[in-house]
Amino acid sequence: MAHEKYSSVIQALHECMEACNHCYDECLNEENVKSMSECIRLDRECADICSFLEQSLSRNSPFIKETANLCIEACKKCADECKKHNHDHCQKCAESCRKCADECEKLVS
Amino acid sequence: MAHEKYSSVIQALHECMEACNHCYDECLNEENVKSMSECIRLDRECADICSFLEQSLSRNSPFIKETANLCIEACKKCADECKKHNHDHCQKCAESCRKCADECEKLVS
Amino acid sequence: MAHEKYSSVIQALHECMEACNHCYDECLNEENVKSMSECIRLDRECADICSFLEQSLSRNSPFIKETANLCIEACKKCADECKKHNHDHCQKCAESCRKCADECEKLVS
Amino acid sequence: MAHEKYSSVIQALHECMEACNHCYDECLNEENVKSMSECIRLDRECADICSFLEQSLSRNSPFIKETANLCIEACKKCADECKKHNHDHCQKCAESCRKCADECEKLVS
Repeated sequence: MAHEKYSSVIQALHECMEACNHCYDECLNEENVKSMSECIRLDRECADICSFLEQSLSRNSPFIKETANLCIEACKKCADECKKHNHDHCQKCAESCRKCADECEKLVS
Repeated sequence: MAHEKYSSVIQALHECMEACNHCYDECLNEENVKSMSECIRLDRECADICSFLEQSLSRNSPFIKETANLCIEACKKCADECKKHNHDHCQKCAESCRKCADECEKLVS
Repeated sequence: MAHEKYSSVIQALHECMEACNHCYDECLNEENVKSMSECIRLDRECADICSFLEQSLSRNSPFIKETANLCIEACKKCADECKKHNHDHCQKCAESCRKCADECEKLVS
Repeated sequence: MAHEKYSSVIQALHECMEACNHCYDECLNEENVKSMSECIRLDRECADICSFLEQSLSRNSPFIKETANLCIEACKKCADECKKHNHDHCQKCAESCRKCADECEKLVS
């Protein structure tokens, strides 16, 4: 079953989507929103792409490999941006993104 | 934090999305697809709506209540259809949908 | 055919999604992002909900009415926020949101 | 503005999403659903991916090229499947998919 075969990557995607959306929400509440604008943007992109891949995996999509490659790009770029900021939500998001990129790399290799 | 406050409903939504997409995939592989057409349709609707609400919750959307009400309708209708079919994937999907509808009801009450 | 029966609301949703995403993108580039944070948030919500309803209509979803009601809420709230700001992208977005809310009202009435 | 720069590809994506969702809906209503199962599956994949890219373009996503490459794959595979079937909705969907793949190719080249 698709969702069993892919359970560890689905879990990583789910956690990354949550971390990104939480970071997005918190960034919009920060005092200095201007300095967080790139983070807000990448959080949304990464959350949407992770959520999309999660669904693709759970329905055995024929486009898993291509979607996972897109997801790796998004996770890496979001991790790079988030790790620049000291906020807890950014540091946690960077970690979730890196873990998710690793799981996706295993999937496509 | 949104994703902690909502953790049990987010988990139920995640499981329901997976069960619906798995059921959709399996229904399309069944010999008698014709009799599963309503199930296929509702599986997709329900998976998409659950995934949407999961993201809404994790980013603290201002439309959580309205989206949860939509999700309750979808989960109930999908559960009703799935429980008519003896396939394991349908029975499991019906159960996930009912659990998810219950969690969403708690959220809006 | 669903997409013919619903063609005017689908067009309004499509334009609203584009206006919201464009406004979101421009708000994130503004000098005073802080004052635009609510606008950024509602632009994303409204774009995602409009896109979701567009797809629901084009596949004859059984949840069109419930989804349209959610969309009316999102469009009205986004229009109210956008019209507070003088930026061209905000004013245009407010107009697209109001038009879209009107089309959705016709659909559910 | 993103949505002006990309207007012809956004239009092609919008039409392809509608054609795919309409074809999906009609395939599920056909007498011989079994023979349409691959078409149903690819219609959903292609509609979801087109809708995703439409949104990415309209918000100036940093992942347009990667997402467009995924979309080209989905459109080509869906066109190949649809053109095998004589139903009007399949033939029209195949045509929309081919047009959309062409517009996406121009975008990435």
